Amino acid sequence: MMDIPSSTPRFELVTLGRACIDLNAVEYNRPMEETMTFSKYVGGSPANIAIGAARLGLTTGFIGKIADDQHGRFIRSYMEHAGVDAAHFVVDTEGHKTGLAFTEIKSPEECSILMYRDDVADLYLRPEEIEESYIRDAGLLLISGTALAQSPSREAAVQAIQYARRHGVKIAFELDYRPYTWTSPAETSVYYSLVAAQCDIVIGTRDEYDVMENRSHGSNEQTISTLFASGASLVVIKHGVEGSYAYTNTGETYRGHAYKTKVLKTFGAGDSYAAAFLYATIRGKDIGTALQYGSAAASIVVSKHSSSDAMPTVDEIETLIAQQPVIPS
Amino acid sequence: MMDIPSSTPRFELVTLGRACIDLNAVEYNRPMEETMTFSKYVGGSPANIAIGAARLGLTTGFIGKIADDQHGRFIRSYMEHAGVDAAHFVVDTEGHKTGLAFTEIKSPEECSILMYRDDVADLYLRPEEIEESYIRDAGLLLISGTALAQSPSREAAVQAIQYARRHGVKIAFELDYRPYTWTSPAETSVYYSLVAAQCDIVIGTRDEYDVMENRSHGSNEQTISTLFASGASLVVIKHGVEGSYAYTNTGETYRGHAYKTKVLKTFGAGDSYAAAFLYATIRGKDIGTALQYGSAAASIVVSKHSSSDAMPTVDEIETLIAQQPVIPS
Amino acid sequence: MMDIPSSTPRFELVTLGRACIDLNAVEYNRPMEETMTFSKYVGGSPANIAIGAARLGLTTGFIGKIADDQHGRFIRSYMEHAGVDAAHFVVDTEGHKTGLAFTEIKSPEECSILMYRDDVADLYLRPEEIEESYIRDAGLLLISGTALAQSPSREAAVQAIQYARRHGVKIAFELDYRPYTWTSPAETSVYYSLVAAQCDIVIGTRDEYDVMENRSHGSNEQTISTLFASGASLVVIKHGVEGSYAYTNTGETYRGHAYKTKVLKTFGAGDSYAAAFLYATIRGKDIGTALQYGSAAASIVVSKHSSSDAMPTVDEIETLIAQQPVIPS
Amino acid sequence: MMDIPSSTPRFELVTLGRACIDLNAVEYNRPMEETMTFSKYVGGSPANIAIGAARLGLTTGFIGKIADDQHGRFIRSYMEHAGVDAAHFVVDTEGHKTGLAFTEIKSPEECSILMYRDDVADLYLRPEEIEESYIRDAGLLLISGTALAQSPSREAAVQAIQYARRHGVKIAFELDYRPYTWTSPAETSVYYSLVAAQCDIVIGTRDEYDVMENRSHGSNEQTISTLFASGASLVVIKHGVEGSYAYTNTGETYRGHAYKTKVLKTFGAGDSYAAAFLYATIRGKDIGTALQYGSAAASIVVSKHSSSDAMPTVDEIETLIAQQPVIPS
Repeated sequence: MMDIPSSTPRFELVTLGRACIDLNAVEYNRPMEETMTFSKYVGGSPANIAIGAARLGLTTGFIGKIADDQHGRFIRSYMEHAGVDAAHFVVDTEGHKTGLAFTEIKSPEECSILMYRDDVADLYLRPEEIEESYIRDAGLLLISGTALAQSPSREAAVQAIQYARRHGVKIAFELDYRPYTWTSPAETSVYYSLVAAQCDIVIGTRDEYDVMENRSHGSNEQTISTLFASGASLVVIKHGVEGSYAYTNTGETYRGHAYKTKVLKTFGAGDSYAAAFLYATIRGKDIGTALQYGSAAASIVVSKHSSSDAMPTVDEIETLIAQQPVIPS
Repeated sequence: MMDIPSSTPRFELVTLGRACIDLNAVEYNRPMEETMTFSKYVGGSPANIAIGAARLGLTTGFIGKIADDQHGRFIRSYMEHAGVDAAHFVVDTEGHKTGLAFTEIKSPEECSILMYRDDVADLYLRPEEIEESYIRDAGLLLISGTALAQSPSREAAVQAIQYARRHGVKIAFELDYRPYTWTSPAETSVYYSLVAAQCDIVIGTRDEYDVMENRSHGSNEQTISTLFASGASLVVIKHGVEGSYAYTNTGETYRGHAYKTKVLKTFGAGDSYAAAFLYATIRGKDIGTALQYGSAAASIVVSKHSSSDAMPTVDEIETLIAQQPVIPS
Repeated sequence: MMDIPSSTPRFELVTLGRACIDLNAVEYNRPMEETMTFSKYVGGSPANIAIGAARLGLTTGFIGKIADDQHGRFIRSYMEHAGVDAAHFVVDTEGHKTGLAFTEIKSPEECSILMYRDDVADLYLRPEEIEESYIRDAGLLLISGTALAQSPSREAAVQAIQYARRHGVKIAFELDYRPYTWTSPAETSVYYSLVAAQCDIVIGTRDEYDVMENRSHGSNEQTISTLFASGASLVVIKHGVEGSYAYTNTGETYRGHAYKTKVLKTFGAGDSYAAAFLYATIRGKDIGTALQYGSAAASIVVSKHSSSDAMPTVDEIETLIAQQPVIPS
Repeated sequence: MMDIPSSTPRFELVTLGRACIDLNAVEYNRPMEETMTFSKYVGGSPANIAIGAARLGLTTGFIGKIADDQHGRFIRSYMEHAGVDAAHFVVDTEGHKTGLAFTEIKSPEECSILMYRDDVADLYLRPEEIEESYIRDAGLLLISGTALAQSPSREAAVQAIQYARRHGVKIAFELDYRPYTWTSPAETSVYYSLVAAQCDIVIGTRDEYDVMENRSHGSNEQTISTLFASGASLVVIKHGVEGSYAYTNTGETYRGHAYKTKVLKTFGAGDSYAAAFLYATIRGKDIGTALQYGSAAASIVVSKHSSSDAMPTVDEIETLIAQQPVIPS
């Protein structure tokens, strides 16, 4: 349970980073070469988390740069209809395009993404485009790791963190590691370490923490020891179907279990997890319950065709928790 | 009627330039923001011309660089099935992506394209990747103007022209002007002039010739005067629904008329025109007939949803010529 | 007086950043257009500080990337002869050049620099080229602000800081702001704030602190309040001929005065100041005395033709302090 | 003897390309690491040729882009004083720097250059900055091969050629091959071939023609056969101390011999050769004499410290021809 300021923030959650287009294979269980039709959805981890959080009922804002074209306008319109505040969408004026993700679903176990991420609009968010008062009025600021991959988006994310710290706003860091936007593992490690050291909550998979630490097969104990020393209060480490762990700087450890489900594809699991976990935490549920919210939301999204569109409601999550068996450890 | 070498060439036509992916709106007559599904087709002017020429029965080759991903493999496979020789597809090894064109069809009169052309694979074809013997064995080499837009594709196109001239292979230049890949009008004018001065056949719209001449409202007389002085033998200038003109360096002028048709979208008209006009010319039809082949093929493609897939057969063209009234001048 | 670890470090000071070539006008007191001969010197703030510190007797190391050419080899040779350990000079292998500074001395009050800083070798130092043990064995690590201006040098500097903090090595930050290498004031402010928050000692001019704070006419009180809150223990703020101030996190304030001197040019003043101030601090002199060491060293360098070559000895400094009047406040 | 238009042109010679700064070792016969002082001169092949031609008495103009800084202003001032028309110097407005060449003279046989050519101002000359009337009024336009190395300077050079051809102005091409500014040998070959095919006079070393032909050990016979076929009338091929050959499209061959001299360094030989050869040709001397003018001028420059400053007068050339023995073949 987070230590939330008593006064009600304007937005319970503000996420920062990319909002993109997913082009999901309509004909699936085949290689993409044989897919002839694609469905369009909003995508990108922090956009998905904002949409998921809004669907769960959090007051939610989003900070990001979108292209001045049909795809950019679709993203804005979709997110506004989903209940996300769009006042801090910054429209690109330099001709940058919207990032694209063509999804290939060969089988539930073999999913891959063909990415268009060169010179995309979201990576051109600039530090002077971050409005201090929008950060100041947030209950929690979530930074997506991919926003750190290139300049000037990298500096915009750090600027947002500096504003949040100045005003005592809590910060969550979703590691969201996407190798293709980074120059080298050493570069990723430098920025992930730098940012994690300034955040209250860190969420990622075990593999992502290894990237942050620039090592292989790191241990959760080492990870939390470093992060608690630099000031984090809550660290979530996900281990796939084996479930997830939450550690607090007060010494508690919680374990969450994954739910059995019929997997259509693996995309979107992490985003729905983060949205539901943060929802539960912000709304004062205990950490063990928050972990199950995360697992349940992930389980729902992987069984459906889209990521953003499939973000569940509280009812859907609670129904699944009540009815569905977990995968035993 | 072209002066074709008497020995049969290995390929009657070899086109050089880009092969891309068109993502055509499935739900159309609306802004793209409201289109939720897209169909995938091969696109790009020289790829479309090669597909169109092969469908008409010409032996056809293609020179271009394609991405090493699902889209690149789809392009190769589609073109091979369409009868285009794929021996000189060069596969990119530096991670460049396939160019994309999302088509928006608001109405038959309001069509636009949202392009992804930054750092695309086709613009990375290098001069040392052009095989001299492949050019030498062609009956006609067609250069697409867009291949000149950036280095090293620009140098690859010039290299192909130098090989063709060394071996007496005729060269056609399809102006195919796409402003977004060029730095400035002055740059386009420099390269269009340079290449047109080395070609036998030049095909373009009146607007494209104005770009070549870096002027507004140029006249056909000035255009042909310059081109014939530098060695061209046949110049085709298209004036939209008003029809097209063909001029020869022996002083003849031909006029072609457009056919009445139910237009779905305007994309692909120029490519099908070029394929059918060159087919007729190569196969020894007179220039007046060749112009009507071009018009008929364009008319067929604009009434259908795709460009490459809709390329007509000889039967379809001849049926339309026999049955359909032209738009009077 | 710094709290230095009791065990003797391998190097009392290690500086990180650029080493360049100064080309100083042989004929001066005129515009550079009329200067026909230039003398070559090693330049660049952290290189000058290392040379100055070595001349004062500190065991000194340097971390930086130098070009694989005649200028790079001259730099290495010169610094080795000056007593700087050159084991962590990294030689560039990608053809980058050595940064150049042509100095123009129109009059003692009108000095300017014509910089060659595009794609220079020093900005290509990579984080994976920083050796953890070299940092671990240092008594004090000095980071030059210019090393933060571009990637990957920026990440290399942050990596060095992360290693220093891991091993309890003290860190000094010389702001060394050079506008031409930065994209925007917002970008500079983000990184200067980020790095200053991780350092023990911060040294700069009042103007440089204003850059860090992205404001005009900031006050020393605000500056030290922010820096002490984030963990700094000693902050030096220079006000030109009005002298300099040192503030400690234990509440003490010291004032240093500038010495009267015959100024030939203004270059190199800050570097000699930093070298002498840090020498005095490391060797246990009180802060008031360290400020006068800095002022005296600056006074000596501005009266001479070069920066690196003119770095004074302890005797020269102490003689000047004993004999020369200060500029009264 | 060239076929020069009867009306007197405004400038007998206009050269196009780079104007740079040479920084020549004051202390020589040693590695540059040990050279501590450098003298400043104007450099760059087409600037040197313009200066040399003006010194010989030709009315001379220059087209090039120079940096908006002390080095750029020095270049302009020096060339104007040397008698070169500076009306078509274009001043860069985007912060590009002047190219630099530090010369290293280890011995007369071991000379090398440390080049600063990244993003230099001269390579940013744009085609729209070429004034048609300035070309139209020239007697001869000389294009330097290095101007073709990068865009937009490449397009500016081609634009100048197109203007010259439109107005019947003769064109000379000095191959001036500098590998470091080119991407690949294939790229150089494409543009050298393209431009040579449009010029009247081509001048280069045997090695440079091999670069143009993208082969090793090419023969003069092949070279002239290709160039005469595309329209050249005069081809000069230099073979170092073995002398040079001039070939005309009317079937004549001339041989020039090098003069014995005391060589200080090899820089500048080609530029003085071109200036004197073109001077003699423009002023109606026979080709055999023009070759000796070229050899004599080269011989004078290699015996002196600079290139531009050492360009000889007609008297100096004629005195040397009268007194100095040639190197026998």
